[in-house]
Amino acid sequence: MTRYQHLANLLAERIQQGLYRSGERLPSVRALSQEHGVSISTIQQAYQILENLQLITPQPRSGYFVSQRKAQPPVPAMTRPVQRPVDVTQWDEVMMLLDARADKEMISFGGGSPDINQPSLKPLWREMSRIAQHNPAEMLSYDVLDGRLELREQIARLMLDGGSTVAANEIVITNGCHGALSIALLSVCKPGDIVAVESPSFHGTMQMLRGFDIKAIEIPTDSETGISIEALELALEQWPIKAVILVPNCNNPLGFIMPEARKKQVLALAQRHDIVIVEDDIYGELAAEYPRPRTIHSMDIDGRVILCSSFTKTVAPGLRVGWIVPGRYYDRVMHMKYAAGGFNVPGTQMAVAAFIRDGHYHRHVRRMRQIYQQNMETYTCWVRQYFPAEICVTRPQGSFLLWIELPEKVDMVCVSKQLCRLKIQAAAGSLFSASGKYRNCLRINVALPPTEKNREALKKMGEAIVIAMEEG
Amino acid sequence: MTRYQHLANLLAERIQQGLYRSGERLPSVRALSQEHGVSISTIQQAYQILENLQLITPQPRSGYFVSQRKAQPPVPAMTRPVQRPVDVTQWDEVMMLLDARADKEMISFGGGSPDINQPSLKPLWREMSRIAQHNPAEMLSYDVLDGRLELREQIARLMLDGGSTVAANEIVITNGCHGALSIALLSVCKPGDIVAVESPSFHGTMQMLRGFDIKAIEIPTDSETGISIEALELALEQWPIKAVILVPNCNNPLGFIMPEARKKQVLALAQRHDIVIVEDDIYGELAAEYPRPRTIHSMDIDGRVILCSSFTKTVAPGLRVGWIVPGRYYDRVMHMKYAAGGFNVPGTQMAVAAFIRDGHYHRHVRRMRQIYQQNMETYTCWVRQYFPAEICVTRPQGSFLLWIELPEKVDMVCVSKQLCRLKIQAAAGSLFSASGKYRNCLRINVALPPTEKNREALKKMGEAIVIAMEEG
Repeated sequence: MTRYQHLANLLAERIQQGLYRSGERLPSVRALSQEHGVSISTIQQAYQILENLQLITPQPRSGYFVSQRKAQPPVPAMTRPVQRPVDVTQWDEVMMLLDARADKEMISFGGGSPDINQPSLKPLWREMSRIAQHNPAEMLSYDVLDGRLELREQIARLMLDGGSTVAANEIVITNGCHGALSIALLSVCKPGDIVAVESPSFHGTMQMLRGFDIKAIEIPTDSETGISIEALELALEQWPIKAVILVPNCNNPLGFIMPEARKKQVLALAQRHDIVIVEDDIYGELAAEYPRPRTIHSMDIDGRVILCSSFTKTVAPGLRVGWIVPGRYYDRVMHMKYAAGGFNVPGTQMAVAAFIRDGHYHRHVRRMRQIYQQNMETYTCWVRQYFPAEICVTRPQGSFLLWIELPEKVDMVCVSKQLCRLKIQAAAGSLFSASGKYRNCLRINVALPPTEKNREALKKMGEAIVIAMEEG
Repeated sequence: MTRYQHLANLLAERIQQGLYRSGERLPSVRALSQEHGVSISTIQQAYQILENLQLITPQPRSGYFVSQRKAQPPVPAMTRPVQRPVDVTQWDEVMMLLDARADKEMISFGGGSPDINQPSLKPLWREMSRIAQHNPAEMLSYDVLDGRLELREQIARLMLDGGSTVAANEIVITNGCHGALSIALLSVCKPGDIVAVESPSFHGTMQMLRGFDIKAIEIPTDSETGISIEALELALEQWPIKAVILVPNCNNPLGFIMPEARKKQVLALAQRHDIVIVEDDIYGELAAEYPRPRTIHSMDIDGRVILCSSFTKTVAPGLRVGWIVPGRYYDRVMHMKYAAGGFNVPGTQMAVAAFIRDGHYHRHVRRMRQIYQQNMETYTCWVRQYFPAEICVTRPQGSFLLWIELPEKVDMVCVSKQLCRLKIQAAAGSLFSASGKYRNCLRINVALPPTEKNREALKKMGEAIVIAMEEG
C-alpha cells in the first residue's frame, strides 16, 4: 500500500468513528504533513481519495470539511423465507446472468468474479507458461482421481489457518468449489430429499439442488450472525432434512462471519439430528479479520462436515481448481467424483501448487484482502450517495459482495432488465431464493475496481432504482 | 514416415496378404534396392523392422525368409452376457486401475491413454505457453457455460467428417468425454432406470451408471459388427429401457466399426421404442479407414442421439476438453452441465482451438492413425508369439485397443495382481462387464510405443498367462 492510501484509510476511519464530525474542518495539509512526517503532495493525494469517496468536501480558501452525510443505513433484518421445502425456481434468471459473461462490454456487478488483473498474479501465469514449455508430458497426461499430490499437500497446509488438521490423502481435488458442492450433494442426497439452506443463499448451489431434484427449505438468516439456529431446529423437527448447506465465513451474499459459538451450535444440532453439513468455505480466506475465522469443519469430531472450497475467489476462476474434504463420506465422494466430476486438468493444479509453495499465494491474498476492503468502503459510500435513502446495506466482514435491500415496491428483476440495455449487470435478489423472494434486493460485486466508469455505472443503477421507486 | 518404415509396411502387407508365403525366400537386399530405387542400407533397415516383428527370419548366407507362423488367431465370438438388468459391480477393480496412474514405473497396458510424446504435439504446448504469456486475463476468467465459441466452431467443422451438420450453438463443451457421458446420463435418466450397454463395454460409463444408481443390461455384441440388433430388440420388448450407450466407431474395448446398415437399424429400433441413444465417438477420428466412419448422430432426424466426444484420445487427456451435442435434450443438458459438470478451463480450450485452426490437429491425427496401426500390427504379432495358442484376438478397425480372449480357465484378475508386482499393468476383462464376466479376457493399450522394454513386458505377461493356464 502506498503512503497516501494508508493515510486516506486512517482518516476515513477517524471520520467513520466520529473523531471528525460531519461539517467539521479537517487539519490543514501543512499541519498533517508535519504530524505524519510526509510530503505535502502525499497529504494532497490522500485528501483527493477522500474527496472522491465523498467523505470530505473542499471549500475554496478554507480547506477540507467532513461531508454532510446521511446516517449509515441499517443492516437488513433477519430474513423470513417460506417455511417449507420447495422446488428451486429461477433457472432462467441464472442463465441470463451467466450468458452476460459472453458480453465483454457488460459491467458485471452481478457476477461473482474476483479481480484477476492484479500484478501479484503474474508469477502464476509465468508458472503456467513454464509448465507448458518444460513439463508438457505431465500437463497432457491423465490426472489421478484425487488430484495432484503436491497440490493436496499445499492445501492441507492452508487449511491449518482455518483450524482444520487434515492429511493430503483426505483431500480430493475438484473442478472448482462448484464441482466440490455438486459432488457433495450427489454423494449424500438422492432425488426427493430435502436440504436446508441459508436464506438468501448462493444461486449456484440452489440450481444444483434443482438439477438433482432435491427440495430446498430456506431458513431465516441474520445478515450479521448467519442462519437462525432456532429456525433450523424447528425445521429439523418438522421435516426429514438430509443436510444443511452453509457459507459461514464471508457469506455469499450477506457477508457475515458466523460467530464461533453459533458454528458450534449448528454443529451440535447436526449431530443431534444426524444430518450432514456441507460447508462452503470459498470466501473464508478473504475475511477481513486476522487470523482468518475457523471453519465448522475444524470443530467436527465425527466426519459429518463436508468442506468444499477452491482458488476461484482467492486466485482465479479460470483455474477450475477446488477441493473437497469429505470426512466419513470419502469413498462415496471418490465414486461420485468419478461418476459426475471426472478428472481435472493437471496443468492448472501444478501451477497453483507452485504459486503457493513459492509464497506468491499468501502475498496475493493479503493484497487482495486490502483491496477488497478499500473497494467495499468506496462502493458503500457510493451506494449511500446514489441509492434511495430508504435502504438497508450489509456490512460484510470480508470478501467482495455487498447485499442491498430496497423498499418493497422496487422490483430489481425489472430494473435489471433495463440496466442490461445500458450494459450494466445487476444480480436481482430473487436469484438467491429458492422461491424467488427478495425481488427488492440486489447483490453487488465490489471486486470491480472503483474506477470512474464503474462509479458512473453504479450511479446509473441508483437512478434506475429511484425511478422504479417513484413509479412503483 | 521414413523411407524404410514405408518399405517395411509394404513388405509386411505382402506377407500378410500371402504374396510371400511362409518359409519362402524374400528378394535379396540388392534386388529390392534396385526395384525401389533406394539405398542398400534402407532395405537393411526395413528388413530389420520385419525381423523384429518376427515376420521374417535371417538365415546366414542365404538371405531372409518369411517366418513359419502360427495361423492368425480367430476373433472372439458373439458375447453372451447375463440377459437382465443388474447393478454394476467392479468399482474396487476400476479404482485399482486408476491408482496405478500414480506409479510412474508401471508399464500401463491397462490404461486408455494415447501416446502424448509425439513431436506433432509441440505446437499445442507452444500455444499453451503463448496464451499464458499473452492472454492471461482470458485464461484466468470464468468460462461461459457452453464453452468457448472459437472452439465450438472448430468442432462443428470437424463433425462434418463424421457426417453431422451442427451449428456451434448446438455444441456444449464438457470436461472430457467422461464429463459429456456423465451429463448425458444425468440428463435423461433417474435412479432405478435401466440402460442398455454393449458387452463388453467401457468401464467408465458403467461406473457412472453405478454412481447414479442406474441398472445396466448388457447386450450380446459381435467383435466385428457390434451390438446384436436382435438381442437389443428382445431386451427392449422385455424391459423398460431408457437409453442405450454405444461406441459404434472403433469400439472400446472390441475395436469394431459398426457397419452403416447396422447403425441405421439401431437408430430405427431406438425410434420405435422411443429410447435415447448416447453415442460415444471418442475414438471415431482414429479409424483406420478414410474417410472416417459416420456417426449414428449423422443419421438422426429427431434429436434422440446425444453425441459425446473429446480430444482425450486424439490429442491429450490432460486438456480435459470434450463436448456433447444434446439434440432435443439441449436445455436439460445445459442445466445438468451447470449442476454436475460446472465450468471448464478456458486455457486448454483456447489452445486446442488454435491447434485445430492452424492445421496442426489434422496433421497430428493423420500421423497418430498410422502410428497406432503400425503398433497394432506389432503388438498383434507379439501376442501371437508370447501368448498361448488357444486365444481369440480382435482385429480392431482403428484406435489403439486390443481385446484378447484367453481359455476359460485363465483368471486375468489373478494374473493382473501378479503382473502388478512386476510393474506391468493389465486390464482384466471383468472390468468391462457389469456383472464381472470376461475374467478370462484382457484389454491391451497399443499406444505404448513398441520398444524393447514394452516387448519384454508383454512377453512376461504372456508367460504369466501360460503359467496360469497350466495351473488352472
